[in-house]
Amino acid sequence: MAILVVGSVAFDSIETPHGKRERCLGGAATHFALAASFFTDVRVIAVVGEDFSAADEAVLTRRNIDTRGIEHLPGKSFHWSGSYVKSLNDAETLNTELNVFETFSPKIPAAYQDSEFLFLANIDPVLQANVRSQMPDVKLAFGDTMNYWITGHGDNLAKTLKGLDGLLINDGEAKLLAHESNLVIAARKIHGMGPKMLVIKHGEYGATIFFADKVFGTNHKTHPFRSPALPLETVVDPTGAGDSFAGGFYGYIASQGELTPAVVKRAMFYGGVMGSFAVERFGTERVQALTREEIDARFAIFEELSHLE
Amino acid sequence: MAILVVGSVAFDSIETPHGKRERCLGGAATHFALAASFFTDVRVIAVVGEDFSAADEAVLTRRNIDTRGIEHLPGKSFHWSGSYVKSLNDAETLNTELNVFETFSPKIPAAYQDSEFLFLANIDPVLQANVRSQMPDVKLAFGDTMNYWITGHGDNLAKTLKGLDGLLINDGEAKLLAHESNLVIAARKIHGMGPKMLVIKHGEYGATIFFADKVFGTNHKTHPFRSPALPLETVVDPTGAGDSFAGGFYGYIASQGELTPAVVKRAMFYGGVMGSFAVERFGTERVQALTREEIDARFAIFEELSHLE
Repeated sequence: MAILVVGSVAFDSIETPHGKRERCLGGAATHFALAASFFTDVRVIAVVGEDFSAADEAVLTRRNIDTRGIEHLPGKSFHWSGSYVKSLNDAETLNTELNVFETFSPKIPAAYQDSEFLFLANIDPVLQANVRSQMPDVKLAFGDTMNYWITGHGDNLAKTLKGLDGLLINDGEAKLLAHESNLVIAARKIHGMGPKMLVIKHGEYGATIFFADKVFGTNHKTHPFRSPALPLETVVDPTGAGDSFAGGFYGYIASQGELTPAVVKRAMFYGGVMGSFAVERFGTERVQALTREEIDARFAIFEELSHLE
Repeated sequence: MAILVVGSVAFDSIETPHGKRERCLGGAATHFALAASFFTDVRVIAVVGEDFSAADEAVLTRRNIDTRGIEHLPGKSFHWSGSYVKSLNDAETLNTELNVFETFSPKIPAAYQDSEFLFLANIDPVLQANVRSQMPDVKLAFGDTMNYWITGHGDNLAKTLKGLDGLLINDGEAKLLAHESNLVIAARKIHGMGPKMLVIKHGEYGATIFFADKVFGTNHKTHPFRSPALPLETVVDPTGAGDSFAGGFYGYIASQGELTPAVVKRAMFYGGVMGSFAVERFGTERVQALTREEIDARFAIFEELSHLE
């Protein structure tokens, strides 16, 4: 079943201990869509400028991603510059140029209206809520956010969260959002804000999903579930790892007929798998070159890494 | 098969957000021995002062731990004071009184000589090497250490590491020991120092074991293995969590007839299980009151937390 994703399609200038790239294709929606495209149909809502070329668009369309919802405006695309030279775990933002994103007003093509799965990638929660209200009948809505929106735009974010079935954030974001340093308590607080499924990403240590009571329609409590991350010797570029996790996770869920604990657990593994590929090369390079066979082989390594037999 | 453990038997004065305890029974060897005693026979080498009472000793002997190797000297026992009020992840040491430990010279009773498993808990590496040399024929020798010995006593520690089959340390200690921030590369460097099995503990995120090539006598590489930690809503006192992990891990290994990847993986889970109990109450309170049935029930929860089916 098709996923509609709204978020940034952008250019990133990235410096890491392994080198530099100027203006490579990036953005949360790009990384998410590429990862999810190995599992299901993906439709993108975004805005780009005149610098977004046919070659850039072909990166998406080669993976059968529907780009009809990408609006083209005069001016330049969103451009982020960051460095991981000091720490591979923390991006240092050197520059952010919103450009065409400053006036972005998401419009959903008629052809996207039957999308059953909605993903609100990390953008202004006002835009996220806007898209959510245009897609009231989706089967499932998940989203992402970041510290900037949590600390500076809390009221808008609160409205967006009310419309979400699930949220994917990292440890620091969860603690900040819940004003709570214990993750179990933080998760319960965040369930109360809307998302009944909360994926907390622990970077190189994997991720945990916390379920609110009765989320699967039964009376019994569904325990949390932890998926590992692959211990990697080389992390070339962490940019997009979280969005690729989200794409693998949500893409797998959308590819399945029903939402069960077993499906969500496998989705957590596919999230980790896609995140582990994303960091192997700069930008989208590794995921662009990926095959489904490689994904399945790595899924087996994730099982070996975490399963007793 | 019996484990001989050498390390501290001590009194701890502990402050956490959940309260205070003055001079409760603690020390690495105590926590290790109690946890391991649920799996196999344990014999302790340590030194205590006149303040170590019959009631303190009974905490160990009630669990059938052999205390004949605990030397009683005039003076006071080792005493550590620490606080977790600022952070449950980092103990702030308020005071350390070595007392009888200052002149400790480990002597191994004749009745301990046939121990097949040796564990060198976190003490001066000179003492660790001393005990290792007195037990040259053990089937397996594992150990622990900490930042203090890594930074200030590196040469002595290097000698101890050469005599170890396995080492259990945390992320920060591994990075410090290897002068390397990437855990995969750090693990390979530490394998080169001696221990062919390296358990790196990630606190609330679980632990990873890295195997050197051919450690199980075969030609193929054994991949790393990750065990989860239980997401806990209440951590009353983290003191002894790492030693309890080590006790569960090594106790299970010693209880099995052979050392295989399957045994070591289950041992990683038992380590996590024992660590998860240790932090539920102050000092040794929770592990003292534990039953094997509770351990097996929590093992099942660890499987549910991490396994796809």
